[in-house]
Amino acid sequence: MLLLEKETIIVYRLPWTWKCSKLLMKGIHAGLNAVAAVLAIISLVAVFDFHNGKNIPNMYSLHSWVGLIAVILYMLQLLLGVSVFLLPLAPLSLRALLMPIHVYSGLLIFGTVIATALMGVTEKLIFSVKNPAYNTLPPEGVFTNTLGLLILVFGALIFWIVTRPQWKRPKEPNSILLQPNGGAPEGVDGPTAVHFGNMDKSDSELNSEAAARKRNIALDETGQRSTM
Amino acid sequence: MLLLEKETIIVYRLPWTWKCSKLLMKGIHAGLNAVAAVLAIISLVAVFDFHNGKNIPNMYSLHSWVGLIAVILYMLQLLLGVSVFLLPLAPLSLRALLMPIHVYSGLLIFGTVIATALMGVTEKLIFSVKNPAYNTLPPEGVFTNTLGLLILVFGALIFWIVTRPQWKRPKEPNSILLQPNGGAPEGVDGPTAVHFGNMDKSDSELNSEAAARKRNIALDETGQRSTM
Repeated sequence: MLLLEKETIIVYRLPWTWKCSKLLMKGIHAGLNAVAAVLAIISLVAVFDFHNGKNIPNMYSLHSWVGLIAVILYMLQLLLGVSVFLLPLAPLSLRALLMPIHVYSGLLIFGTVIATALMGVTEKLIFSVKNPAYNTLPPEGVFTNTLGLLILVFGALIFWIVTRPQWKRPKEPNSILLQPNGGAPEGVDGPTAVHFGNMDKSDSELNSEAAARKRNIALDETGQRSTM
Repeated sequence: MLLLEKETIIVYRLPWTWKCSKLLMKGIHAGLNAVAAVLAIISLVAVFDFHNGKNIPNMYSLHSWVGLIAVILYMLQLLLGVSVFLLPLAPLSLRALLMPIHVYSGLLIFGTVIATALMGVTEKLIFSVKNPAYNTLPPEGVFTNTLGLLILVFGALIFWIVTRPQWKRPKEPNSILLQPNGGAPEGVDGPTAVHFGNMDKSDSELNSEAAARKRNIALDETGQRSTM
């Protein structure tokens, strides 16, 4: 699930996909998330089955609480994402309002899943590495601690990729600079200009989605992007 | 340490501090981080003392590995931050190069500390809640699991605050829009405009630091910001 979720988070960040239509990329993003959601449910069923088969109580640990909350939030995020951003029903104003929350929740859930995995590794090591004991740091402990570190490094890499502005899927180039309602008019007073400078990029991206689709066609023809 | 680190992360995000000079805010940011670093070292000494006093092995758990790495990265981050961004030695180009890394590392370390805390809570519950056992979910378990959830919610709130563009300390209003090297010239070709649109905000902020200080003085005089 972690690997698939990563794919869905960075799917817009792959420069070779910038030629593809936004709708196709959204479909891939939603599709991968849906597969990850199914895997998450299968994992939960497997965990409860395993616990019940071995008479281990369910849902007592912090790991289980955080993990279940993450899965529930993930399902809500998927439902919200499909109904607002994929289906052509929601007005642009609603999309613009919810996009920053969607991006934030996606990253938050990803981070929460990493924390859940690390707590799970911690629990499992304490419960299962018995002979020799985990606190003597046997090879099994070193190996699994290293796995935990790699999960963390993996999360750090994804977090790096999604926060690099130069890897952001480009928006319509003229949407901010030339459009009268997108760019700040000359002679604007200080505070307004500050607000413009701090405007959430998602807004202008959403407003220019139709234009961006046209641009993608144009770029396909000229092949400009294929060299990037 | 977590609470102090939070303060240092959001210290530039408090609108009532936007009137203060950037240098003062940098000093507060660095000072709070230095106090947090001292507390982190005191905590580490306390943990090793506690372990040695009770004959508990040190540094075997994933919690300890991740925690020690976080503290080492935190010290490096502090050293780098003071030497590059606080002392007036480094050239602007180096500051511009390192600023995105500094911001990323700060948030990454914060997230890692949260994950470490959650693993620590998980360990402590397994080791210490014995009678009745943790897996029967006694009040002590519910209480401490809830504490773990609150740590996570706390991290989520800080992450929300630092990723809202409208709470970013405003930069010089005219630095991008009017300066010939800051704004994109008219008639620029598509890909270049895209690059401009994706430019890291930190760059322009660094380049306009001196101008921003002047602006802050001007704003103090007119009192424009004090109404925000």
